[in-house]
Amino acid sequence: MRTIIQNGIIVTASDTFEADLLIEGEQIAAIGRDFPLEGADVIEAEGCYVFPGGVDPHTHLDMPFGGTVTKDDFTSGTTAAAFGGTTTVVDFCLTEKGKPLKNAIKTWHEKSKGKAAIDYSFHLMIGEMTEDVLAELPSVIQEDGITSFKVFMAYKNVFQADDATLFQTLIKAKELGALVMVHAENGDVIDYLTKEALANGQTDPIYHALTRPVEAEGEATGRACQLTSLAGSQLYVVHVSCEEAVKQIESARRKGADVWGETCPQYLTLDLDDLRKPDFEGAKYVWSPPLREKKHQEVLWNALRTGALQTIGSDQCSFDFKGQKSLGIDDFTKIPNGGPMIEDRMSILYSEGVAEGRISLNQFVDITSTRAAKLFGLYPKKGTISVGADADLVIFDPFTVRTISSETHHMKVDYNAFEGKRVKGVVQTVLSKGKVIIQDDTYKGTIGDGTYIKRAKYSEQLRNSALAERV
Amino acid sequence: MRTIIQNGIIVTASDTFEADLLIEGEQIAAIGRDFPLEGADVIEAEGCYVFPGGVDPHTHLDMPFGGTVTKDDFTSGTTAAAFGGTTTVVDFCLTEKGKPLKNAIKTWHEKSKGKAAIDYSFHLMIGEMTEDVLAELPSVIQEDGITSFKVFMAYKNVFQADDATLFQTLIKAKELGALVMVHAENGDVIDYLTKEALANGQTDPIYHALTRPVEAEGEATGRACQLTSLAGSQLYVVHVSCEEAVKQIESARRKGADVWGETCPQYLTLDLDDLRKPDFEGAKYVWSPPLREKKHQEVLWNALRTGALQTIGSDQCSFDFKGQKSLGIDDFTKIPNGGPMIEDRMSILYSEGVAEGRISLNQFVDITSTRAAKLFGLYPKKGTISVGADADLVIFDPFTVRTISSETHHMKVDYNAFEGKRVKGVVQTVLSKGKVIIQDDTYKGTIGDGTYIKRAKYSEQLRNSALAERV
Amino acid sequence: MRTIIQNGIIVTASDTFEADLLIEGEQIAAIGRDFPLEGADVIEAEGCYVFPGGVDPHTHLDMPFGGTVTKDDFTSGTTAAAFGGTTTVVDFCLTEKGKPLKNAIKTWHEKSKGKAAIDYSFHLMIGEMTEDVLAELPSVIQEDGITSFKVFMAYKNVFQADDATLFQTLIKAKELGALVMVHAENGDVIDYLTKEALANGQTDPIYHALTRPVEAEGEATGRACQLTSLAGSQLYVVHVSCEEAVKQIESARRKGADVWGETCPQYLTLDLDDLRKPDFEGAKYVWSPPLREKKHQEVLWNALRTGALQTIGSDQCSFDFKGQKSLGIDDFTKIPNGGPMIEDRMSILYSEGVAEGRISLNQFVDITSTRAAKLFGLYPKKGTISVGADADLVIFDPFTVRTISSETHHMKVDYNAFEGKRVKGVVQTVLSKGKVIIQDDTYKGTIGDGTYIKRAKYSEQLRNSALAERV
Amino acid sequence: MRTIIQNGIIVTASDTFEADLLIEGEQIAAIGRDFPLEGADVIEAEGCYVFPGGVDPHTHLDMPFGGTVTKDDFTSGTTAAAFGGTTTVVDFCLTEKGKPLKNAIKTWHEKSKGKAAIDYSFHLMIGEMTEDVLAELPSVIQEDGITSFKVFMAYKNVFQADDATLFQTLIKAKELGALVMVHAENGDVIDYLTKEALANGQTDPIYHALTRPVEAEGEATGRACQLTSLAGSQLYVVHVSCEEAVKQIESARRKGADVWGETCPQYLTLDLDDLRKPDFEGAKYVWSPPLREKKHQEVLWNALRTGALQTIGSDQCSFDFKGQKSLGIDDFTKIPNGGPMIEDRMSILYSEGVAEGRISLNQFVDITSTRAAKLFGLYPKKGTISVGADADLVIFDPFTVRTISSETHHMKVDYNAFEGKRVKGVVQTVLSKGKVIIQDDTYKGTIGDGTYIKRAKYSEQLRNSALAERV
Repeated sequence: MRTIIQNGIIVTASDTFEADLLIEGEQIAAIGRDFPLEGADVIEAEGCYVFPGGVDPHTHLDMPFGGTVTKDDFTSGTTAAAFGGTTTVVDFCLTEKGKPLKNAIKTWHEKSKGKAAIDYSFHLMIGEMTEDVLAELPSVIQEDGITSFKVFMAYKNVFQADDATLFQTLIKAKELGALVMVHAENGDVIDYLTKEALANGQTDPIYHALTRPVEAEGEATGRACQLTSLAGSQLYVVHVSCEEAVKQIESARRKGADVWGETCPQYLTLDLDDLRKPDFEGAKYVWSPPLREKKHQEVLWNALRTGALQTIGSDQCSFDFKGQKSLGIDDFTKIPNGGPMIEDRMSILYSEGVAEGRISLNQFVDITSTRAAKLFGLYPKKGTISVGADADLVIFDPFTVRTISSETHHMKVDYNAFEGKRVKGVVQTVLSKGKVIIQDDTYKGTIGDGTYIKRAKYSEQLRNSALAERV
Repeated sequence: MRTIIQNGIIVTASDTFEADLLIEGEQIAAIGRDFPLEGADVIEAEGCYVFPGGVDPHTHLDMPFGGTVTKDDFTSGTTAAAFGGTTTVVDFCLTEKGKPLKNAIKTWHEKSKGKAAIDYSFHLMIGEMTEDVLAELPSVIQEDGITSFKVFMAYKNVFQADDATLFQTLIKAKELGALVMVHAENGDVIDYLTKEALANGQTDPIYHALTRPVEAEGEATGRACQLTSLAGSQLYVVHVSCEEAVKQIESARRKGADVWGETCPQYLTLDLDDLRKPDFEGAKYVWSPPLREKKHQEVLWNALRTGALQTIGSDQCSFDFKGQKSLGIDDFTKIPNGGPMIEDRMSILYSEGVAEGRISLNQFVDITSTRAAKLFGLYPKKGTISVGADADLVIFDPFTVRTISSETHHMKVDYNAFEGKRVKGVVQTVLSKGKVIIQDDTYKGTIGDGTYIKRAKYSEQLRNSALAERV
Repeated sequence: MRTIIQNGIIVTASDTFEADLLIEGEQIAAIGRDFPLEGADVIEAEGCYVFPGGVDPHTHLDMPFGGTVTKDDFTSGTTAAAFGGTTTVVDFCLTEKGKPLKNAIKTWHEKSKGKAAIDYSFHLMIGEMTEDVLAELPSVIQEDGITSFKVFMAYKNVFQADDATLFQTLIKAKELGALVMVHAENGDVIDYLTKEALANGQTDPIYHALTRPVEAEGEATGRACQLTSLAGSQLYVVHVSCEEAVKQIESARRKGADVWGETCPQYLTLDLDDLRKPDFEGAKYVWSPPLREKKHQEVLWNALRTGALQTIGSDQCSFDFKGQKSLGIDDFTKIPNGGPMIEDRMSILYSEGVAEGRISLNQFVDITSTRAAKLFGLYPKKGTISVGADADLVIFDPFTVRTISSETHHMKVDYNAFEGKRVKGVVQTVLSKGKVIIQDDTYKGTIGDGTYIKRAKYSEQLRNSALAERV
Repeated sequence: MRTIIQNGIIVTASDTFEADLLIEGEQIAAIGRDFPLEGADVIEAEGCYVFPGGVDPHTHLDMPFGGTVTKDDFTSGTTAAAFGGTTTVVDFCLTEKGKPLKNAIKTWHEKSKGKAAIDYSFHLMIGEMTEDVLAELPSVIQEDGITSFKVFMAYKNVFQADDATLFQTLIKAKELGALVMVHAENGDVIDYLTKEALANGQTDPIYHALTRPVEAEGEATGRACQLTSLAGSQLYVVHVSCEEAVKQIESARRKGADVWGETCPQYLTLDLDDLRKPDFEGAKYVWSPPLREKKHQEVLWNALRTGALQTIGSDQCSFDFKGQKSLGIDDFTKIPNGGPMIEDRMSILYSEGVAEGRISLNQFVDITSTRAAKLFGLYPKKGTISVGADADLVIFDPFTVRTISSETHHMKVDYNAFEGKRVKGVVQTVLSKGKVIIQDDTYKGTIGDGTYIKRAKYSEQLRNSALAERV
C-alpha cells in the first residue's frame, strides 16, 4: 500500500518545511516532492501541518480506583486518543504487593489485547522492593519490554511506597537501564490533612485541593530528585502541577542530575477556582495533584519553553460525573481522582501553547510526541517523521476553530472539563502505521489494529544512535 | 545537477535515521531510499553521519585589533571553516563612533566579496545610540539584511558602550525585531585591575586572566539580562565562559526573559593553567573572556545539556604567535586577544561532547548549526536537513581519530591551541549549496562561491512558520 | 550630676530585664537596683521600656536639591529626631566634582555647628576618584573622623558615578578601613525611561515610580555587591526598597561578602498606590528609590527578621508640599525627592514591627540603634545601654496610642506621609548625654548641645574589643 | 553572699564594655563600677572577658546506645561542661514506643537528680504520635516544664519516626507553643547504603561517612523545613553538618518560616579525612551526621556569621575508644555514634571563631549561650549578664594558649578528638548561681547543686517581655 500526503507543512521536533510524504506499508518511505501519484492514495494537506502522531506517556485505562473502574477502557480510550491526534499511549500497569509482577502484566494484556485503536505499551508500578520483585525485574525488561517503573510517594496505605523502596528502585533501574517515574506528593502529610478536614466537616471538592498543598508536592519532588542524584540514576516526575515542584526539577538538572518532568493540560489551563464550582461541579476537577492557583500556570508554561519540563501527559483517568464522581458527594475523599483528557491533550497544548505564542511549533511536537518516544524507548519507530519511522501521522488544520464538548467528544464519560472552550486548530486526518484511522471526524480504523509495543531501555535510547556506541 | 548521498545516518537537531539524500541543484530535494542513481553524482556515506553544515555565529575575519590585523581573512578563514564542517559564518562588522553604520558595512563587503568559500553574513556592532544611528537602523535591517547588533560592555575607551547605549539598543531591537548580542564583562573593573597589574610589574600572559575575574563577567551578564527584561527585548550573550554567567542566564530565562547564551570550544576544554605555560606560550591562550579554572567546564557542559546555553561559536580571531601575539611579550595588554578556532569548533564539540556522552548527537547538531540558524534568521535555508533547504552538508566519519596540529590545519596562523590533541571523528566530505567543496582532506570548491546572505528578523524566525501567523 | 531612671525595663540589642539606671555626668554609671536617691534626679519609668537612643544613619539636613533646599536644617531636623527618640544622626555631606573634599566638609560644619539638638556626624559623598581625592582621603578619616563614603549609581549627570569610581572607592576603603555606601539604582536606565515618559506626556507623580523599576534597583545592588566581593571590601546599601535588591544582598552575604543593608520606614509601610493619590497628593510620596508594590513589604520585614537587612534609616529629606513639591506639578522630574521621616522612624518600626509581632524588642533596638552605631564607628559611645556609654536614652511607653499628624509633628514641613495613622507606643522622655532633652512632649534641651562626633574606622569597630586584638 | 567581679570586660550577645559585676546570692545584682568591697568575695578579672555561662542545648549523658552506655553520666558530664565554661545543659530524654512519656522523664530524673554540677533540663524524644502521646503532652509542658520535642528522621527501626509523626508533632507543638527539634538525615537511604557497604565488605570507619551522604542530610532538612511551613509551626534542626542542609534552612527562613539551626564544633573543624586515620583511629570521629569534606566548614562558619545558623551544641555522647568504639572494629555500624565534646565546645568556637576573626565576640556569646537560652525557655534566667539573671558566669582569659588532651580533660573517656590541638583562650573561673565552681583548673563546687529547670514555652520566650504582650 502506498499513500502520499502532499503539500502539507512537515513539522518535527526541530524542523518545519513544506514537503510531501511517501508512505509504503506501515512506514514512511520518503520525504520529498512530486512523488508519482499512480497507485497511491493521495491525501491533500495543503494549508495544514503534518505532525508525528502524539505519544501520551500517562494514561489509566480500564483501571480500578476507589471501588469503581475508569469509564474508558482500551477501546474507547485509544479511540478517543486517536481523535485527538495521539497514536501511541503508555498505560500504567498496577501491581499488588505480595503478588508477582507478571500477574499484573498478564492482567493488563487481558484488558488491552485486541481492544486498541492505536499502538500501546505499559509502565509498571513498583509498590515494594522484595527479593521476588528484584528477581522478576530483568525479565520484565527483557521479555515484556517494560522499561519504566512507577513509584507512588502518595496514596498512603494504598499505593504509597516508602523511601527505601524508591531508593532501591532507582538503584536497580540504573543497573538495568530503566527509567523510574514518581508521583511526587507527600502522602503522610496529605493523609493527616485529609483526616483533619473530614473531622472538621469539610467535605466539599475544594478540600481535595486544600488538603494537598503545593509544599507537599514540592517536598516530595525534591526528595525524589535528591534520591536520584544519590543513586546516580534517572527519574521522570509525572504530572508536575506547581512552581515548587518545577524549582526542584530545575535545580536538580542544573546540578547535573538526569531528571525529567511532565505536566498535564489541566495544570496549564484550569485552576483552584474550578474546584469551587457550585452544585458539586467541582468534583469534575478533582485530580491528584490538585489544580493550583492560577499563578502557577505561567511557571509551567515557561518551564516547557525553557526545557525545565519536557513532556505532557494526559493522566487520562475518567469517571462519570453521575454515578462515579458522585460517590463523593458527602465526602471529597470518595470522589474518584482523575478526569477525561486523552482526547484533548494535544489540542489544548496547540491552542494555548502554539497559537498563543508560548511555545514554538517544534516544541509542540517535541513535548507531545518526540520526547516521550525517546525517553520511553519508542523512538525512532514512534515520535518522528523520518524515513523508516512508523507512519503515525496527524494532519492538522490550524485555521479552524472548534468547541470542546462532552456531546461531541469520543470518551465515554458524561462531562468534559473544558466544556464550551473554543480552541484553535482541528485534527483533520490521523494515520496509524500507514492506515487512515480518523477522517472527517469519523473513526475509519479497525479496533485491535493497535498492538502492544515492547520498548527499548532508557539507557539505549537516550544517548543515541548505534554508530556512536561503536566508536 | 543531481547528487545522491547514500547509506548515511541523517542527523538533525531532533532526529537520527538511516536514509539517502537527493540533492537537485543547490537544495535538498528528497530524503528517502533507493533514489535512481543514473545521472547523479553518488556519494557513499555508509558508516557515517550526515549533519547539516555548521553555522558559526561568531567570527572575526580580516579584523584590525590593537594595531595589527587578524591573520585569517575571508578566504583562509572560510576555507578553514569548511574543512571543519562549517558552511556558514556570521562575522562581526565593526563600526566607528561618529561615522555612518553603512560605511562599516561597505568596508565589510569589500573584505569579503568574492573571497569566501562558504556563505556568510554580518552582525553589526553598535557603539553609541545617536539620532544618526537610530535613523540608519531600519535600513540596515531591511536593505542590508543585518538583524543582530552587538554591544560591548568591555574594552574601555575602545569598543565599550555605556548602559544607556545598551538599554536603547535593546529597546530599538525590540521595536525592529532584531536580536541584541553582548560581550558581557565589566570593562571598568577590568580597566582598573589591568592598570594595577601593570603598575605592579605583572606583565605575563596569566595576568590577562587574573585581571578579568569571573565576577566581572557574571556581573555584566546579569546586568545585560536585567536590562533585557526591563526592555521586554531579546538578548544573546556571546562567549559565556563561567558558572557566574551561566547562572545569570538561567535565572533570567527562568523568570521568562528571552535570553540566549553561546559558549566556545576553548572554555569547554582549556583552562587557566594554559595561560601559565612557560616561554610566553601562555599568549596563545589569551581570549576575552579569559580561560577559567577547570571546574567551570562541567558547568558549561551541563548548561549545553539542559539548554541553559544553546549555541557554540568559534570566536575565531587569529593572530600568529610570532610577530603578533609577541607584541605583548613585555606587557600582556598588548597581546592581541583571540585565537584560531573556526576550523576545530565542531570537531571539539563532537569529540568531547558526543563521544564522551555529555550531549546527544541531536544536541550536537542543534548547538553547532540549527539553533544559530534559527536565532539569526538563516533558517530554514541553513541549519537543517530538510526538503528545500540548502544542501550544506557534512559527511562525518565518527570512527576515525585524528590529531590536531598547526602543521595540518588550514588556518593561516602558526599555532593551534589544541596542538597534539587527538579527537574522535573526521569530516570526510562537505557540500555547500549542493557542491562538494571538501573531499579527501582537499578543498575542491571555488573561492567566491560563498555569497552574502541577508538574514530574516529574529521576530519572524523564532515563532515559526507562516501558517501559525495567519491563524 | 546624677540621674536615676528607675523601674523601667531595659532593652538592649540582645537583652530585656527590669533594672534601674544610674547616670553620672554624661555617661551611664551603673545598671542595678535601689540606687541611693539623694542628690539625684529621679525619673520614673515604671511600665516603660528604656531603649538606647536611636542612631539614624541616613539624613539630609539643610541640603540643596533641584534648585531648592530641604525644609529641615540641623536645628529643626535634630530636634524632631529627638522627639522621635533618635539621639544621633549621620548626615550626608555632598561634594562637588573638581573641588576639594575638605571644602564640602567645611560647608557641612558651617551648616551644623551650634545648631544641633543631638550629636551628629557626617558621611562623605564620593563623586569621582581623582588623584586629588585619593590624596585627601587619609586625612578625611584621620582628621575629620569621617569613615564612610557614599557613591551614587543613579542621578545621571548629577551625582552618578561610574563603575570605575565605585570600584576604586571600594578598593581604597578596604585599604583605609572605611565603609562604602551606595545608592543602588541604575541611573542610565532611569534617565532613559524618564525622558520617554515625559516625551509621552506622562508627568504625574506616579511616573516617578514607573520610571524607576525594581529591576533597576536589583541590578545596581547586585553590581555593587559583586564589585565589593571583587575588591574584597565592605559595602552598606542604603534605602533598600524591594525584593530584587534584598535577594542580591542575601546572596552576596551567603557567599561570604561583607555587605550590609538598610531599609526605611516608608518602604515597610507605604506603597505604589500612594503615588496615585489625586490632586497631586502623590508628590508627597516621591522618594528614590520609589515606593513599590505592597508585596515587597513582607520581604523587607522578613529580611529584618532574619538579618538579611540590618538597619533602618529615615532618609530624611523634607520639602514642603506647597512651594517645594509643587515645583513638579507639571513634570514629576521636578518634584524634589524625599520626605520628612526623621521623627517617626522609630515609632513606625516599633508599632508595625514589634507590636505586630514581626520583630522582637531586641531586634528593634539593634535595627534602630546598635547596629548602625557599630557599623559607623559610634559604638560603644552610642547605640547601647552599658556602663560607660553615653547616657543617650529613650523612655518609651508601649501602652499609649498616638496619631501622627503634621499639625503636631516637629519637623518644619507642611505635611506628614503618615497623616492620621495611629501608632502604638509613645516616646515619653529622651536623654542626650545624661540631660533630659524631651519630656512631656516638650523640648527641654539647649540647641547647640549636640556636637560633632569623629567616628572610628569600620575596620576597628566591627571585629570587636581591644582585647581580642592583643591576642 | 556578695561577690564582686571587677575590672573584666563584660560581653553580652550585643555589647562589650568594661565594668564590674555585683552578685548577691544567686543573681546578678548590678553592673557598674567601684562597688564597695567590704563583705564581698572579690574576683579580679582584669584582662579577661566575662561571658554568660554557656548553654549547651544538645547533650546525651548516661545514655544507652547500641548495647552500651555513654561513658559520661550527669556527674562527669556536667563537671566537664563546667570546666569548659558551660553552666546549663539540656539533655535528651529518650522515650520508648508504646510506653508513657512520663516513664522516660522519670528515668531521666533518676539519672540526674543530685548528680549534676550545673543546672540542667530535658528535651523529650517523640517516636510516635498516638492518642496516648497526644494526651500526655500538655502535662509534659505544664508540669514537667519540657517544651521541646525531638523527632528522629534517621536510625531506621530504632529511633526513626515517619513523616506522619513529624508532621503531627509540628502541628501539636504549634498548638502548645513548643519547639520541635529534628535529627535530619534520611534514614531509609542510610539504611540501604549501610547494608550495601557491609555486603561489599566495607567495614572501616570511613564507611560510616560514605553511607551517610550530604544529600541524605540536605533532603531530610528540606523535608522538615517544608513540613514546618505547612504546619505553620517552629523547628530547630540539630547538628547541621553541611552546605546542603544550610541551604535548606536559609531558604526556609527567607520564605518566612520559623526555622533555626544548630551546628557543632566537630563540623566546624574536623573533616572526612579524620575518619580515614589508620589503626581504627577513625572510629574516634564517628558522629551522625558524619564529618564532611573540608569545604563545608567555610559554609558553616559563614552561616554562623550571617545568622543562617544560630547555635552550637556539643552533641556530647561519649564512648571510650577502647572497649566501646572498639565494638565496631569489624563493622562500622557497631561503632557507637558520638564523641566527647561537652568540655571543649566553647573553647573551639572561641579559638577558631573569634580569635580567627570569623565571628565577633558578641556573636560568640549569642551562639554559645544567649540564643539557646531564649529558644529553649531558659532566658532571662540563663544566657545573659543582666540584672536579675542567674549569676552563671565565665571569666575567660583570651591571652593564654592551652593544649587539648585527654590526659587533662575532665570527661571520663580515654581520648579527645582534638588531642594536641592548641587553642587560644582559657576558662579561668566559672560561677554557677553565684558560687565559684571552677577555679585554678579545679572543681570547687558541690555535686548536686545543679538542679533541674522547668522551661518556659517557646511561644512565650521568643517575642519577648511581658510588657509588649499587654499592649
